Amino acid sequence: MSVHSKLYEGKAKILYTTDDPEVLLADFKDDATAFNAQKRGSIIGKGEINCSISSQLFKQLEVYGIKTHFIDNPSPNQMRVKSVKILPLEVVVRNIAAGSLSQQTGLAVGTLLKQPLVEFYYKNDQLGDPLLTRDRLLLLELATVEQVDAITNLALQINEFLNGFWQQCGITLVDFKLEFGLDSQQQILLADEISPDTCRLWNTAEADPNRRIMDKDRFRRDLGNVEDAYQEVLQRVLQLVESKN
Amino acid sequence: MSVHSKLYEGKAKILYTTDDPEVLLADFKDDATAFNAQKRGSIIGKGEINCSISSQLFKQLEVYGIKTHFIDNPSPNQMRVKSVKILPLEVVVRNIAAGSLSQQTGLAVGTLLKQPLVEFYYKNDQLGDPLLTRDRLLLLELATVEQVDAITNLALQINEFLNGFWQQCGITLVDFKLEFGLDSQQQILLADEISPDTCRLWNTAEADPNRRIMDKDRFRRDLGNVEDAYQEVLQRVLQLVESKN
Repeated sequence: MSVHSKLYEGKAKILYTTDDPEVLLADFKDDATAFNAQKRGSIIGKGEINCSISSQLFKQLEVYGIKTHFIDNPSPNQMRVKSVKILPLEVVVRNIAAGSLSQQTGLAVGTLLKQPLVEFYYKNDQLGDPLLTRDRLLLLELATVEQVDAITNLALQINEFLNGFWQQCGITLVDFKLEFGLDSQQQILLADEISPDTCRLWNTAEADPNRRIMDKDRFRRDLGNVEDAYQEVLQRVLQLVESKN
Repeated sequence: MSVHSKLYEGKAKILYTTDDPEVLLADFKDDATAFNAQKRGSIIGKGEINCSISSQLFKQLEVYGIKTHFIDNPSPNQMRVKSVKILPLEVVVRNIAAGSLSQQTGLAVGTLLKQPLVEFYYKNDQLGDPLLTRDRLLLLELATVEQVDAITNLALQINEFLNGFWQQCGITLVDFKLEFGLDSQQQILLADEISPDTCRLWNTAEADPNRRIMDKDRFRRDLGNVEDAYQEVLQRVLQLVESKN
């Protein structure tokens, strides 16, 4: 595979074209940003860790029946992915109240939701990724009604799988963000990544509300030991995957 | 009617109990606030103007078949209303993009929406009245599914009536905020007020984007001539109502 030009540089990944027009190369960076890139830093080893966790999860999700953009890993921090047109939506699934849900509704952090909440945000840095009602999403024509319904169902299925997966790792899945893309046949594929950058992950055995955090909130809130937390998540994922093989 | 104690003081009105437990007295104030009360001021005559406009609109809406809390006016800035339990929701109906919709979605101010948008906000000053998705509203148990559906239908019917009414006044109804309450029989009544404080009203004949504004945006954005605009809206309402009698 020969790598061609840089197609897009995001906050955590660089996408390159390859000699196959249907295939892109995603290069995972150590760069970390938060609060719409107002806070910037770097988490040593994050590129490899997130690439590895995401790859394992995408492989497992494929077995579970979810179509993803994942192909393979040419190197530890690189993922070959199917080229898709990313829908400008951040799809957030929430099992437990935290983050902006708590800030905006007053629901105490840690409140178990009676049922998972699937929320859509407009992936638009200039506008600050605002929350979308269904009507606003359709008004802006960011997706069709059929796509919104299909994505909601996919998000709930993915949540079902991930809840079980993380539970087996001794990790509580609080919430997570997904992105979806359309391939050349207009098929919806799960894209982007699934990692401590995009999930809220709490160490189930740890009661202390700061110590239990194993995700990017350690970076956002300057809680320290960010690298250790990411590394620990990866180790638990690898152990679980190996125990299944 | 003897007026008893002050029940509640809001930003624009004071509610008093009366000798009839089913009846409250609303006293409309000249006080004006904006941006969640961060900006404060006063619009001379606003109490009487808003009370009068609201009363005329409630009477017209009753004829149109919408149940409201309006009873009568013991004095120009006072309204006797049925006592209701206000639902903690601000129901916004939008016909044209403006305000927070434009800020949050990037839709240019003045964009005609293909169909009216009914939006729910959490009436909670501490949280800054955040936008609610349907799922968040239900999660917070701010209303039942049946109430949300009934209110959405009522809001669209009220919009239908108000669009025609304001059009006959030479005024374009951009958007407006409603509040609803439950009476002792759990019946949903339109409550609060409908006035230049709660509607975006544009002088249809005026093309200039600042001069056409006849509502609280003149106060919010320091555009001047606030009293004149409110007075002009009242005059047009009274002329239309008289021409119909």
